[in-house]
Amino acid sequence: MLKSAELGRKLSKEDYEAAVPELRTSLLKVQAELAQANFPVIILIHGADGAGKSETLNTLNEWFDARYLRIETYDAPGEEAREHPEFWRYWMWLPRNGQIGLFLGSWYTQPILDRALGESKPRRFEQSLARINAFERTLSDSGALFVKLWFHVSKKVQKKRLKAEEHERSTRYLITKTNWKHHEHYDHFVSVTEQTLRDTSTGAAPWTVIEASDDRYRNVTAGLTILERIQRHLATRHVSAPPPPEPHIVDPVTLLDRLDLSLSLAKPVYEKRMAELQGRLGALARKLEKQRRSAIFLFEGSDAAGKGGAIRRLVWALDARQYRIIPIAAPTDEERAHHYLWRFFRHLPSRGRITIYDRSWYGRVLVERVEGFASEEAWTRAYKEINDFELELTRDGIILLKYWLQISPEEQLRRFQDREREPWKQHKITAEDYRNRQKTNQYEAAASEMITRNSTEYAPFTLVEAEDKRYARIKVLETAVERLEAEL
Amino acid sequence: MLKSAELGRKLSKEDYEAAVPELRTSLLKVQAELAQANFPVIILIHGADGAGKSETLNTLNEWFDARYLRIETYDAPGEEAREHPEFWRYWMWLPRNGQIGLFLGSWYTQPILDRALGESKPRRFEQSLARINAFERTLSDSGALFVKLWFHVSKKVQKKRLKAEEHERSTRYLITKTNWKHHEHYDHFVSVTEQTLRDTSTGAAPWTVIEASDDRYRNVTAGLTILERIQRHLATRHVSAPPPPEPHIVDPVTLLDRLDLSLSLAKPVYEKRMAELQGRLGALARKLEKQRRSAIFLFEGSDAAGKGGAIRRLVWALDARQYRIIPIAAPTDEERAHHYLWRFFRHLPSRGRITIYDRSWYGRVLVERVEGFASEEAWTRAYKEINDFELELTRDGIILLKYWLQISPEEQLRRFQDREREPWKQHKITAEDYRNRQKTNQYEAAASEMITRNSTEYAPFTLVEAEDKRYARIKVLETAVERLEAEL
Repeated sequence: MLKSAELGRKLSKEDYEAAVPELRTSLLKVQAELAQANFPVIILIHGADGAGKSETLNTLNEWFDARYLRIETYDAPGEEAREHPEFWRYWMWLPRNGQIGLFLGSWYTQPILDRALGESKPRRFEQSLARINAFERTLSDSGALFVKLWFHVSKKVQKKRLKAEEHERSTRYLITKTNWKHHEHYDHFVSVTEQTLRDTSTGAAPWTVIEASDDRYRNVTAGLTILERIQRHLATRHVSAPPPPEPHIVDPVTLLDRLDLSLSLAKPVYEKRMAELQGRLGALARKLEKQRRSAIFLFEGSDAAGKGGAIRRLVWALDARQYRIIPIAAPTDEERAHHYLWRFFRHLPSRGRITIYDRSWYGRVLVERVEGFASEEAWTRAYKEINDFELELTRDGIILLKYWLQISPEEQLRRFQDREREPWKQHKITAEDYRNRQKTNQYEAAASEMITRNSTEYAPFTLVEAEDKRYARIKVLETAVERLEAEL
Repeated sequence: MLKSAELGRKLSKEDYEAAVPELRTSLLKVQAELAQANFPVIILIHGADGAGKSETLNTLNEWFDARYLRIETYDAPGEEAREHPEFWRYWMWLPRNGQIGLFLGSWYTQPILDRALGESKPRRFEQSLARINAFERTLSDSGALFVKLWFHVSKKVQKKRLKAEEHERSTRYLITKTNWKHHEHYDHFVSVTEQTLRDTSTGAAPWTVIEASDDRYRNVTAGLTILERIQRHLATRHVSAPPPPEPHIVDPVTLLDRLDLSLSLAKPVYEKRMAELQGRLGALARKLEKQRRSAIFLFEGSDAAGKGGAIRRLVWALDARQYRIIPIAAPTDEERAHHYLWRFFRHLPSRGRITIYDRSWYGRVLVERVEGFASEEAWTRAYKEINDFELELTRDGIILLKYWLQISPEEQLRRFQDREREPWKQHKITAEDYRNRQKTNQYEAAASEMITRNSTEYAPFTLVEAEDKRYARIKVLETAVERLEAEL
């Protein structure tokens, strides 16, 4: 594949100077049009050492209106990145809708390096590529445009360029032993690159290989490729029909109907059991910290199902410095301008820590589905996206506990009325809560489908009979303790 | 001062159990009321080792609704914090309006530690306290409530507590050699603490010293202090009249009127000079990176004054990975819920890097003043706040270059009309731009006052005659090169 980019393509100075003004004008125009669009553009610049990646980055930065570009360089992960899941640092810097992000180095850098230098096995490398495909798929499904450029130079050209840069005063400091080491492994890099390009050139995020030995040819070809891809994406985004939704699971007797809501616990039993469980949980949390693992607890359930109360009992056993509770309400406007999973990445626990989400990414297939805030195509797709996302988290060693708290409509009404009686609880209850009650059946159907589709082996849902608060709280703590004991 | 907190105050178990339920209810009530308020609460928990700081933190976390607390622990700065100005990591985690932030460790930790262990001189310590006062003043002036708690124990009690924790299995891992080292320096810590409390107990952010040897007394007193302070702040925020504004500088002949807008440059001179300046600037940027200094360029000026064009010429000399351009438009809702300086902290350059602000924090005293988005009291206060903020930046070694680009109203109109003629520039021009033109005098008066008040020795404004684009761009580059040469 790469051999086809060793044909000696060049652009004369005259042709370059004739082409550039029009190209720049077109890039600026398309950038202005893009600013109004509801998707981001993610441009990856990859290629061999000495292929001119930073030169082209600088040129593109000149050609576009640099004020509306987001440029990031990804080298080896720093201290903060190492404390978080692998993809966290990429999620954090994704461009927002209407913006262009230019990345020098990316999620491809480390897997390719490790494989080419023999530091990872073929199987591990293939897993990395599969993870990358899932990551890019998640973003492109929601509209993100990927332009992935691979700059290729032959071994001979690489050597010539590295030598030339070593002789030039202004670039000398850029060439290090590492570059020469990579040059020695040139052939390994080529074969690893070929596999990468093959396995990750998907319909939504294809690679473009660009012959890179001539600066002018490389820059203009990169510019034209980007221009053409953005233009096409802007055009098709306006007319494309959404793909047909997958069939939904329709089940008139839901899983939730089968829960025994009469389960309850007497106060003395509750208090004894609670004290014991909190002791064990506290010890497990310290163990988690020592092992530098991390955990996520997420709570879903209808209004007044007792999520807050269960969370409070859970955290009493913990050191306040170890965890963070993230209540999820309507997204801020910054959050709305990103992929819907972005705002959850912001709060992922670092190693040794715990994040508790009071409502979570499941809002996509619950409230956003029922209230029509997400299109049918978007929430249908979300089941798989969430499974992929949670697989990523657990692969990074995060222990994920997911709870659904279930109460009957009658109990919900009683609790609403109680809240109205307490002056300082009144802010917790609004007319909207009553309106939502009329959609109980739709919410139950959505919850049922979610539990079926998203209870995976690696991250199952725990269904909690929550009619009796004591019973529910004990069940939450018990399952937490069991799971942590099994994992730590 | 601290001796008065060695009186042996205690609370019996009965009194504690009688007091806590009502205290908790009141704290939850006040937290609910606070959620609607337009200020944040910043609670600092400080005190000697073994004074029970984390125990009280955990207790407060139980008493409040933990979902709406923000808890942060500040130890020695991590990699990312060391790459940024000293106060950056505190700014980043400030609670938003309506939220309570509980901090264990803070901006006081390191200065006190360094002074007590003899690692900093008295003068340096006093400077630290002055910086802290300016920082707290900036926040409290815009409404933030500070509750600063100091937990005191006698030397004897400290020893007893450290020993007890060493014997307890669940707390043993918390006690290290450092704790015993601090115990040996107990007397130094006391005298440094006394000075700290004296010098940083301001009207807006006073310290409360709490006798800490009895857990129950300490917890209840901390809870009551916080309750009482929030209640009082909620009450006074509703009725307080704004302080009288400082007198404005009114100058019918503004500084800007004196600029010679006829200055211009011929194209050949411009091109030669531009090439030379870009070469020098490129070399200086590499020097900046090597010296691990950082720089901020900020551009202000009326619409169409040529900020974007000047920025583009400036960055052509730079490596795209070294700098970031931050265009400042209307704040997002997250930004609006914080102090107005918060959003600029997010983009401060790390060591070796450059941030270019296309419009900046001066919006407060320009557009926000003229359009009435900020109250007179708020923008009047901003002159000093900005000077303090910029002093902080330069103290941290950041080189700060500030430009005001000036054009005549006639030239502005010509440029607006040019923009309307270019189809892909039309998005840059709106009816609002024309409306703003009617307030030219007000904008000029505001700009003039800003330049007078905020041209400090450490961060002067450069006034740029921008009627001729070539002249303006060269002046921007020239002053940049001169300044960087002087600093590096």
